[in-house]
Amino acid sequence: MLALTITATDGRARRGVLQTRAGAIDTPAFMPVGTQATVKSLTPAEVRETGAQLILNNAYHLYLRPGVELIEALGGLHRFQAWDGGILTDSGGYQIFSLSPLHRVTEEGLTFRSHLDGSEHFMTPEKAIAVEQRLGADILMSFDQPVPWGATRAQAMDATARTHRWAERGKRAWNPESGQALFGIVQGGFAADLRRESAETLVAMDFPGYAIGGLSVGEPKELMWAMLDVTTPALPVDRPRYLMGVGMPSDLVRGVALGVDLFDCVLPTRMGRNGTIFTWEGRLNLRNAQYERDAGPLDPACPCAVCRTFSRAYLRHQLKAGEILAIRSLTFHNLSFYQQLVARLRAEISAGTFTAWAEGFLAGYRA
Amino acid sequence: MLALTITATDGRARRGVLQTRAGAIDTPAFMPVGTQATVKSLTPAEVRETGAQLILNNAYHLYLRPGVELIEALGGLHRFQAWDGGILTDSGGYQIFSLSPLHRVTEEGLTFRSHLDGSEHFMTPEKAIAVEQRLGADILMSFDQPVPWGATRAQAMDATARTHRWAERGKRAWNPESGQALFGIVQGGFAADLRRESAETLVAMDFPGYAIGGLSVGEPKELMWAMLDVTTPALPVDRPRYLMGVGMPSDLVRGVALGVDLFDCVLPTRMGRNGTIFTWEGRLNLRNAQYERDAGPLDPACPCAVCRTFSRAYLRHQLKAGEILAIRSLTFHNLSFYQQLVARLRAEISAGTFTAWAEGFLAGYRA
Repeated sequence: MLALTITATDGRARRGVLQTRAGAIDTPAFMPVGTQATVKSLTPAEVRETGAQLILNNAYHLYLRPGVELIEALGGLHRFQAWDGGILTDSGGYQIFSLSPLHRVTEEGLTFRSHLDGSEHFMTPEKAIAVEQRLGADILMSFDQPVPWGATRAQAMDATARTHRWAERGKRAWNPESGQALFGIVQGGFAADLRRESAETLVAMDFPGYAIGGLSVGEPKELMWAMLDVTTPALPVDRPRYLMGVGMPSDLVRGVALGVDLFDCVLPTRMGRNGTIFTWEGRLNLRNAQYERDAGPLDPACPCAVCRTFSRAYLRHQLKAGEILAIRSLTFHNLSFYQQLVARLRAEISAGTFTAWAEGFLAGYRA
Repeated sequence: MLALTITATDGRARRGVLQTRAGAIDTPAFMPVGTQATVKSLTPAEVRETGAQLILNNAYHLYLRPGVELIEALGGLHRFQAWDGGILTDSGGYQIFSLSPLHRVTEEGLTFRSHLDGSEHFMTPEKAIAVEQRLGADILMSFDQPVPWGATRAQAMDATARTHRWAERGKRAWNPESGQALFGIVQGGFAADLRRESAETLVAMDFPGYAIGGLSVGEPKELMWAMLDVTTPALPVDRPRYLMGVGMPSDLVRGVALGVDLFDCVLPTRMGRNGTIFTWEGRLNLRNAQYERDAGPLDPACPCAVCRTFSRAYLRHQLKAGEILAIRSLTFHNLSFYQQLVARLRAEISAGTFTAWAEGFLAGYRA
């Protein structure tokens, strides 16, 4: 169903191939975010062209609109969005807590209001897994209760224990015969012992893979790395590890150095829409006047279709004129850059040069 | 420089090949509108894939932003927007009258304020041609004063006479050595004698091609056809005829029946952005609930990439979710449909079946 083959290591960094029912994923991998069953502004063929093999869809958004029944009737998420690569769905726990006004937590589940029309809904761990399975994702996330930054230790313990009980209930509701893999989500807030205990508790339940949630939610970066540092050693080496919602290019490098295999983040797409691009020299804002007459590509070191076709001056004009072509182009380039970055990390791990390369990158990269 | 070869006729309808310095254009042709040096939401490769050989850019918009100097420094409009097909620029007369607040007409030229920042500008027929030549268009439009719908006969005569004088001045300022062709623009308002006289006056100046302006500005459709009916016979058979800003699919069919070779219109792109698509069965609004679970393509008779890839249900979801992918997809499909339509018109003319086919189309097409 889901099998991770580690092909090379360098320190704690791992390179591997994750076999899913939708095909093989080279890891470390970066998943573009397709919240509403589209990676914003791109076609599936373009997402593939950037190098992505696995994308993320949000079960919460798709459950509310267009609804599970419709996507199921149209043949499931792959056929619906015409994407033949892998699909991972987030379960909606995080989205309900961050997007839904007036949500209420009970042991049974979460009552929440739609951010679209205010309609009331009730989601349980069992229903969340059923939604993800019916949507047709290849990798499913457990329904969890994230610990917000600033929570007390008692609150962190309470939410984490509920996350564990919900993971257990979701796992019982899960039908593994579908070939769809289920990940447990490590919580524990910002206490090392709670993080380690959360990982151990979930590992005892024997999930096909493990996500690390509740990080990059406002805490200092060093605290995030400290939490990751104690979490990955508690996870089995033969299962994929997914650091949720992270991050900037340097975060991917540090995450891989700490043993992470999978990442997702809205930053390359969202920042692209706002005019910020990533290059091998660092990031830059294309709105700046210095690029007004720049005849060069977004990144001279990038081989992507946008860099082969358009100048910075042209794309800056399109951006300032409010044209969709700028959004498409900057999104495509940024996702291409992220895929080039993880490909580079994989190559460095295979060559046994990752640790040294990562040190140089983290010392010099302006982003 | 510019040469039209008529390869077939059927009644007044003509099929031909228009040789420009940017290559051959099969006529009748439809030009997608790329106001700000982009056909909204599409890449140049996609515009080409729809079948377009010639696009329209607006000199007025590009003069104001990003400016002639910048586009010239970046290698001209072709290189700037990475489009290797033909480019026709509108001169800006129409845009100044319709978009610029507080414009003032004198015999010398037009004083106007930028719709972007309120800055004051002065445009003359000579300067308009210089702007278009420096931008690097393959076909240039004369600077004209359109006659608005509702103008008196005296006003129509005054604006049309000025248009003629401005056409003469622009022609003197034009450098034909560049290989860039210049069109005169027929005005005359809604009086048949003024229209005919305008055409004859411009023909006496011997332009490489002729545009028919000031139509589809609010008048009843039959009045537009009546004006066109008296105009095209007054134009030389060996020069291209361009009906500006028209129109819906049935308008293209009627225009071709009256001897028009070139069309441009924002409708297929603008209506696409709003969810309206054109099909061989007529137009439809994808937002309608009846398409909610429609697993079929936008148009079962359309071979375009969007129709090969996505269902109506999926694109309707993207449209309702406000996703750019819907805008891109509907724009691409609509422009593909328009190109299929003009290709069909060319085939019917060659087969000698155009007149009968057009009657059937106009009787049955719901758009």
